[in-house]
Amino acid sequence: MKTTTRCFEIVAKCPGAKARAGLLKTPHGNIETPVFAPVGTQGSVKTLLSQDLEKLRVQLILGNTYHLYLRPGVDVIQKAGGLHRFMSWNGAILTDSGGYQVFSMEQLRRISEEGVEFRSHIDGSLHFLSPEKAIEIQFALGSDILMCFDECAPYPCTEEHARKALEQTYRWAKRCQTAFASPSAGAVPLPEGEGAGRPGEAKLLYGITQGSIYSALRTESTRQLVELDFPGYAIGGLSVGEPHDAMHDMVALSTDLLPEDKPRYLMGVGTPDDLWEAIEQSIDQFDCVLPTRNGRNGQLFTSVGKLNLKNAPYREDLSPPDPDCDCDLCSRYSRAYLHHLFRAGELSALRLASLHNVAFLIKLMRKIRQSIIDGTFAVQKKRFLETYRNQGESI
Amino acid sequence: MKTTTRCFEIVAKCPGAKARAGLLKTPHGNIETPVFAPVGTQGSVKTLLSQDLEKLRVQLILGNTYHLYLRPGVDVIQKAGGLHRFMSWNGAILTDSGGYQVFSMEQLRRISEEGVEFRSHIDGSLHFLSPEKAIEIQFALGSDILMCFDECAPYPCTEEHARKALEQTYRWAKRCQTAFASPSAGAVPLPEGEGAGRPGEAKLLYGITQGSIYSALRTESTRQLVELDFPGYAIGGLSVGEPHDAMHDMVALSTDLLPEDKPRYLMGVGTPDDLWEAIEQSIDQFDCVLPTRNGRNGQLFTSVGKLNLKNAPYREDLSPPDPDCDCDLCSRYSRAYLHHLFRAGELSALRLASLHNVAFLIKLMRKIRQSIIDGTFAVQKKRFLETYRNQGESI
Repeated sequence: MKTTTRCFEIVAKCPGAKARAGLLKTPHGNIETPVFAPVGTQGSVKTLLSQDLEKLRVQLILGNTYHLYLRPGVDVIQKAGGLHRFMSWNGAILTDSGGYQVFSMEQLRRISEEGVEFRSHIDGSLHFLSPEKAIEIQFALGSDILMCFDECAPYPCTEEHARKALEQTYRWAKRCQTAFASPSAGAVPLPEGEGAGRPGEAKLLYGITQGSIYSALRTESTRQLVELDFPGYAIGGLSVGEPHDAMHDMVALSTDLLPEDKPRYLMGVGTPDDLWEAIEQSIDQFDCVLPTRNGRNGQLFTSVGKLNLKNAPYREDLSPPDPDCDCDLCSRYSRAYLHHLFRAGELSALRLASLHNVAFLIKLMRKIRQSIIDGTFAVQKKRFLETYRNQGESI
Repeated sequence: MKTTTRCFEIVAKCPGAKARAGLLKTPHGNIETPVFAPVGTQGSVKTLLSQDLEKLRVQLILGNTYHLYLRPGVDVIQKAGGLHRFMSWNGAILTDSGGYQVFSMEQLRRISEEGVEFRSHIDGSLHFLSPEKAIEIQFALGSDILMCFDECAPYPCTEEHARKALEQTYRWAKRCQTAFASPSAGAVPLPEGEGAGRPGEAKLLYGITQGSIYSALRTESTRQLVELDFPGYAIGGLSVGEPHDAMHDMVALSTDLLPEDKPRYLMGVGTPDDLWEAIEQSIDQFDCVLPTRNGRNGQLFTSVGKLNLKNAPYREDLSPPDPDCDCDLCSRYSRAYLHHLFRAGELSALRLASLHNVAFLIKLMRKIRQSIIDGTFAVQKKRFLETYRNQGESI
């Protein structure tokens, strides 16, 4: 059960570039890659319903193990038949391991070789996460794509710190792999049916590489994880505050080392610009809170660049927020209306802007994928970024 | 232009009771009465989109003149082609006159025979509302059903205060009628097309009766307004804190005095119980913030009574919030999921609960109307209230 390469199929490659279009098979559907996963931290993509995600043709969402473990608790989700059933979502779900969250709680955690003891940010209660426990919880949630429990070093961090983190990540990756291979150890399997997804399609455990922005460490971590032969690889520890160029250097370096036939997942990205750049470097998967978080702040991704709808010039602007969009916002409401809803503190503003931003990124991914298949990636990337960067506001 | 009785048609009456089913003609559609209007104070029924209202078959919503006048401002809404176009809503809109709001701002207003000077609750700027101005604004918003500028006395209030308020209301009602009949005085008419609604159907100006809970005053006010011959009548100054029985006594008294062939509108009501009671007394129209406000607080109207989804017992309750409902909440999500969303502070909780409550009241009104047509009103009222009152929680 160590690995299966059959879960991923490359359907097209860019002539003269690394970008590729693929198909990722999961118990909840075949995902067309490159794919962007909106983040549903607490079992809900903020302000959106599963009905909305379906309508937008979202294929994959991310759930946060740490948050769901604390609230509502694994018992509730298990009783509901898994996270898919709990949130009425029949697409694929990727869960993180909780590592990122517990490591970012510097005041509330104690790290050992065994795992991380931490206090709940909700009620201060004491909990323990380990590689085995992280896999057990992800199994109980019914995740389609599970992530290894890793140590994500902060940015900036010393080379020594980054080295220790990647070594810990490697040792824990091996333990995750073992726990994943023998789920009887702790996890209660989901009942048959929708909650467990299609029979015959395996759940996938991804390894996560670390190494901060130190090329030698990034190389070492990637080689270690590749040696363990995971069905997919996440590039972790980036998009945590490092310079933009450093991130893309690390991505280019990592993708050169990762096996061609496995999906590549850049965690925590991103912006429309970063998506084009990273896909050019052969990244297949992304997740990011940006579309919903920016949406709640009134910031829209649009075909004419970034717009902040809270700004005064939109008070009387009767044009659609994005003239090139047919989402529930742009097909019916003006910039002036959205501006008003934000100014008046109406919750529908948050929803409409989030909905549009998710729609924008999902459609962008489809467009990019098609451009790879058509062999027009380079041209379209150039065209998109010129318009996007030149016409929007600086927000 | 003083009146038209053709706007309202009674299609069925309850044998042995006052309840009736009717059809109210407006520039934005024929409304089946009794009708419940969700409140869209600031050009948005809180947490819901116009798409949602259409799907729920909402026929009429209420917009607040005071709020819309201050923000976004009449200029913006006029530029958009009226409130219908601004908020992309093609159903009917009733606007209040702003009287209720400016009279409730005791610290911020100065009353004269001419009108009310008040300070904006948003930025403290000084404004003036009068009968003529209230009509002018409502014309500019493109309202289908306009309300007279009235003085709504608070509860409790002395008989003397109530008398002064109803006399003021009467004098202002006459001025509203005059302003309504000659819109050229101040208002800029809406451009042709969707914003102005169907040609040939008249906008309606309703009179509002006052009199607090003093029977003699209520009688006097109702007679005064009836004498002015409005196409519809609102019963104002109720649902402002008075005892439940006093409200229903005033409703019964008022409806006995109002002309049979005009629509009767009880402002600020209500709860499912009150809707049944008031419809039994021949009320045709309602508006209330309750479905959305209660929804945002986690309180649901359901076929098995009121439920507070935030309460602990729902943590593991996998049944639908209302087993007898097919709305976007009940058709897909469990009580446990909604409970989780509320506990986790997810905005979708507010939306789902609001959506359900509006759906519940809209469907209830259809059911009541049908029972009037079928002649089963009394039986169905008894059956509904027995279930509703006995099985719910006390919230």
